[in-house]
Amino acid sequence: MASHYVVRHVDRAAPETVAALRAAGVATAHEAAGRIGLLGPAVRARQSGVTIAGSAITVSCHPGDNLMIHAAVEVCRPGDILVVTTTSPSTDGMFGDLLATSLRARGVLGLVIDAGVRDIATLREMGFPVWSRAIHAQGTVKASPGSVNVPVVADGQIVRPGDIVVADDDGVLALPATRGAEVAAAADRRLAAEAHKREQLASGTLGVDLYDLRPLLAELGVRYVDRLPS
Amino acid sequence: MASHYVVRHVDRAAPETVAALRAAGVATAHEAAGRIGLLGPAVRARQSGVTIAGSAITVSCHPGDNLMIHAAVEVCRPGDILVVTTTSPSTDGMFGDLLATSLRARGVLGLVIDAGVRDIATLREMGFPVWSRAIHAQGTVKASPGSVNVPVVADGQIVRPGDIVVADDDGVLALPATRGAEVAAAADRRLAAEAHKREQLASGTLGVDLYDLRPLLAELGVRYVDRLPS
Amino acid sequence: MASHYVVRHVDRAAPETVAALRAAGVATAHEAAGRIGLLGPAVRARQSGVTIAGSAITVSCHPGDNLMIHAAVEVCRPGDILVVTTTSPSTDGMFGDLLATSLRARGVLGLVIDAGVRDIATLREMGFPVWSRAIHAQGTVKASPGSVNVPVVADGQIVRPGDIVVADDDGVLALPATRGAEVAAAADRRLAAEAHKREQLASGTLGVDLYDLRPLLAELGVRYVDRLPS
Amino acid sequence: MASHYVVRHVDRAAPETVAALRAAGVATAHEAAGRIGLLGPAVRARQSGVTIAGSAITVSCHPGDNLMIHAAVEVCRPGDILVVTTTSPSTDGMFGDLLATSLRARGVLGLVIDAGVRDIATLREMGFPVWSRAIHAQGTVKASPGSVNVPVVADGQIVRPGDIVVADDDGVLALPATRGAEVAAAADRRLAAEAHKREQLASGTLGVDLYDLRPLLAELGVRYVDRLPS
Amino acid sequence: MASHYVVRHVDRAAPETVAALRAAGVATAHEAAGRIGLLGPAVRARQSGVTIAGSAITVSCHPGDNLMIHAAVEVCRPGDILVVTTTSPSTDGMFGDLLATSLRARGVLGLVIDAGVRDIATLREMGFPVWSRAIHAQGTVKASPGSVNVPVVADGQIVRPGDIVVADDDGVLALPATRGAEVAAAADRRLAAEAHKREQLASGTLGVDLYDLRPLLAELGVRYVDRLPS
Amino acid sequence: MASHYVVRHVDRAAPETVAALRAAGVATAHEAAGRIGLLGPAVRARQSGVTIAGSAITVSCHPGDNLMIHAAVEVCRPGDILVVTTTSPSTDGMFGDLLATSLRARGVLGLVIDAGVRDIATLREMGFPVWSRAIHAQGTVKASPGSVNVPVVADGQIVRPGDIVVADDDGVLALPATRGAEVAAAADRRLAAEAHKREQLASGTLGVDLYDLRPLLAELGVRYVDRLPS
Repeated sequence: MASHYVVRHVDRAAPETVAALRAAGVATAHEAAGRIGLLGPAVRARQSGVTIAGSAITVSCHPGDNLMIHAAVEVCRPGDILVVTTTSPSTDGMFGDLLATSLRARGVLGLVIDAGVRDIATLREMGFPVWSRAIHAQGTVKASPGSVNVPVVADGQIVRPGDIVVADDDGVLALPATRGAEVAAAADRRLAAEAHKREQLASGTLGVDLYDLRPLLAELGVRYVDRLPS
Repeated sequence: MASHYVVRHVDRAAPETVAALRAAGVATAHEAAGRIGLLGPAVRARQSGVTIAGSAITVSCHPGDNLMIHAAVEVCRPGDILVVTTTSPSTDGMFGDLLATSLRARGVLGLVIDAGVRDIATLREMGFPVWSRAIHAQGTVKASPGSVNVPVVADGQIVRPGDIVVADDDGVLALPATRGAEVAAAADRRLAAEAHKREQLASGTLGVDLYDLRPLLAELGVRYVDRLPS
Repeated sequence: MASHYVVRHVDRAAPETVAALRAAGVATAHEAAGRIGLLGPAVRARQSGVTIAGSAITVSCHPGDNLMIHAAVEVCRPGDILVVTTTSPSTDGMFGDLLATSLRARGVLGLVIDAGVRDIATLREMGFPVWSRAIHAQGTVKASPGSVNVPVVADGQIVRPGDIVVADDDGVLALPATRGAEVAAAADRRLAAEAHKREQLASGTLGVDLYDLRPLLAELGVRYVDRLPS
Repeated sequence: MASHYVVRHVDRAAPETVAALRAAGVATAHEAAGRIGLLGPAVRARQSGVTIAGSAITVSCHPGDNLMIHAAVEVCRPGDILVVTTTSPSTDGMFGDLLATSLRARGVLGLVIDAGVRDIATLREMGFPVWSRAIHAQGTVKASPGSVNVPVVADGQIVRPGDIVVADDDGVLALPATRGAEVAAAADRRLAAEAHKREQLASGTLGVDLYDLRPLLAELGVRYVDRLPS
Repeated sequence: MASHYVVRHVDRAAPETVAALRAAGVATAHEAAGRIGLLGPAVRARQSGVTIAGSAITVSCHPGDNLMIHAAVEVCRPGDILVVTTTSPSTDGMFGDLLATSLRARGVLGLVIDAGVRDIATLREMGFPVWSRAIHAQGTVKASPGSVNVPVVADGQIVRPGDIVVADDDGVLALPATRGAEVAAAADRRLAAEAHKREQLASGTLGVDLYDLRPLLAELGVRYVDRLPS
Repeated sequence: MASHYVVRHVDRAAPETVAALRAAGVATAHEAAGRIGLLGPAVRARQSGVTIAGSAITVSCHPGDNLMIHAAVEVCRPGDILVVTTTSPSTDGMFGDLLATSLRARGVLGLVIDAGVRDIATLREMGFPVWSRAIHAQGTVKASPGSVNVPVVADGQIVRPGDIVVADDDGVLALPATRGAEVAAAADRRLAAEAHKREQLASGTLGVDLYDLRPLLAELGVRYVDRLPS
């Protein structure tokens, strides 16, 4: 009764929306979206200082088996980001420089994988950015079916095909494409507000004053004392 | 019955003591102190090659809530290091570049946090050093009380307000301020002894001879053989 | 009844075999060997872009005790790699810059340790490469016996004395010396084949075609659809 | 921009479908469904020998905050199972015997929680079954918003409101209500087939013969030998 | 410079206070104390349905070394609870039925250990209750110094000698002896209040009404809807 | 180049040796053997109060694939214990009641698996004992080769075919068959010595006196004081 699909069509967000969210970065876009869509902290940037944003092509693999990554390449388009998951936890090196070469030839921007990668030195030399749970040389087989472009869960977060994925040193965010424009606008407002706050904080204004937290602290019963009562 | 305090006064160590321990670094100061005060390995340096030493301002937060970090900024002085803990395990990004800007305006040297940070790329650009359990963009609220400058436990180690905190690529150390001078002196002696040992080892002297370990190995029944008996 | 040995003699692989496997790197040598010998992903490179290959000198220590590392130095020769394990899980900093100095004086190429290291900044400055489970300043004692050059288990993998160890950014591989030449030859063939595949993939050929995976996908019941059936 | 909802209406599966899946148990229903819907192994049964099945009422809470569990009680009906998640990983004891008393008064069958529970001795005495990530007495607050009956992710698995949840000593399964009848039928067929296989295996028939695996083993190159070649 | 002590004298709480906290149990006493003193969830009950309360005798051991547990026995008195920690994380079986026999001869009520135990079947037969991080047969040595009755950290919580320790199926709590009477009184009030709440909840009153949470939910922007807006 | 074997012949220990080690139990046999052969604490008993001992039939599987368990059944004999590992970490439920039925028909005593099991309630009802890393219903495939009766690593420990495996509530031990008689004899002596010690400890003799630890404590610099010096 198990059904495995490669879904060819994906509804992608507009490039300018994706670009706006890339400019905002993960933390700001996550806030602007109302704190939804963030993957957990186990899937980490495997390079420094790189931000990408694009449309999710999702892959669900059997653990220890990268067959469906190969199947996914064909449905990728320029500007996409591959999001790979396994049906059970795995740290195997399901992805290396050959797959990166193939994805790059299709215009794919990078990889998010809730499993392992290998050839990491070559991936860094290629400038092909990766967010992964592990780095491990462990090889995989091509023997079991899976799916491409179905909803998946990566590090505790639902990722749907076509989601706008933003990834930087802070982690990975996946937002519904339909919410992109609204979130991008909110992110812009947030960036402006943050610039202002940053100036004030840099000049010595305290956050407890800037955010008016003193009444809340008092209401919560936090007492200011010179020495801790024994 | 829960009591939450912001304690304003902290007894800090003398600047020259702090400087001496900074020069020694975490591993040597830890040894010089009799192997006390070391945080566990989960709170890790999030930059390379930076050593800081200063006086601990401690913060205890509710998980997922950074209200008390804001309350703590006000009691910080130049040369302090903020040490943030949560009452339950958390990897949330409780701290980002705005708080770093605020702390820097107060002269705070860096952050030790048994939880997550975000805006890590900006923190690195700012040169604001961080030791954390995680990097995660997950946002937090400002809704629950906690305390500032009470004894806390960070990655298995008690940290008291005013403790001398030393942090480098090897991890984080927290020592009672009252023991600082004595430890700094012991660290100096240790550094001198290590320089001598390093020379001898570099010239080919074996550790088993330098530390006179052959009698111990014999006493413990360790046998030297050419081949393992089957 | 416990027996502890320092075994002096180790059968090492030929230098040219070791060099060939170093050139192949961990991922390729692992594949060429039939996917055996790979340590798990927890023992990680603590520097970037370094590859070493050499003969394993194995050490089994009591947790929190580095006595046997000192005993091991004496039996090391130029071109060796020290592989340290503990009889129970440990993250203690059993190894630092003094031991690295001593090993370097013996011509040892690097350290693989299923435990912790310290003085990591100095180790990086020295260019002494390390693969470890943790970085932690926690000091150790010299009080309990262990063995040198007996078979050990490091991160889930058996390592025998004299094994050819290859370590790079992808992890650590340990292969029987007797299989080295055969694996090196297979690795060469594999590198040549990969170069060809890389070219084809770079020019847009799909992996599903290059590896002839379409019949397998069909046989496994993977269906290609434009939209996911609801 | 964050939006928090309590959704009152849930489409539930027919009671006889739920009962059929309860009779099948988690492992069989999981297989019958094509291996979808299984939560990870971290959310574990906190009692022995209990199987429940019902309709999911889902809850998304801020970590360390059980406000939304209280909000969820009102929308529960007899035969429901509460599925609680947090927006960040948490082991806090968000649920205890008072909430169990309240849920029982509403006819709720049990709790699945990707966080902690407390009062576990009382819960066991009450016979209120729980599947949780942790047992911990840590108290929580009621200060931050969340949602009831939105899709959530529990231990790596999407759970939607109204999903048929089956939970036993093997773990927890969540299946779309619309697929329930089909899966229940497949589970029945599977149970019958398994009974037959069990008889054959009990009488000494080998699985390699029963499942005709010898040709596959040969094709995969598995060699039968009396002794391992050296 | 390391200093190791066996401290003979411990200020213990009054037996009636200890008894009152035992009657309250961990979760209630933890709440009554203002949510302080709770060990993390990793140190777990290794039997079911047992509650103990007593005065903490604390032990700090080198990992893999149980020498100081032996030293601690002598300073134990009837009604004490042994609390064992290691200076680095360890799962070794530092404690077995012989030590339990010795402690029982001194009137010690049970063991809390942030490490491993062994002979668990015998411990259960003896009725000697244990809360531990692990069960593991791994043997330990008697070679390195440590301390008895100094403040320690167990699973993230400071435990001081003489602390009132309460342990049950929910975990372990350690409270300053000086606060015992006040907490016991608060626990009594809490138990009474909970009995009343339990009755109301059992009769169908909702927590959102009992705790008056509806205004808070509204203030936080939680919206009640029949169906989730798309 | 990968080679996969099913090795038919295994050298097994004498039944009386196996019986003697079963009588000793894991902790005592582990000590008697000189503290070798113990699996880590992650592979745990999934029932209470059961001890088994037998000859290891080892299995190495691809993760998520139980094909080789089926292949292993044929080479099992009465008195054997199946020891299953995967080439990468896995928690999948590779083993359930059908395989247990098949093994029982061959006289196999139980299962040790560094992965997951399912149908745990049925396994307990059958009285088929299991030591596993996880309980999880996740199904597996039969698609990739592996080996039977080659040396494997289970939870950090080498297990060779024919090893005497002892498993009880304390964990799992694997000893070379050739050392069995010697270890069994040592275990007997140890049991006798422990009985004597137990009596002395029960009558109030302290371990520091029984094991003559006072001189060691003094030599290590442990000081006895009434109060901790400030």
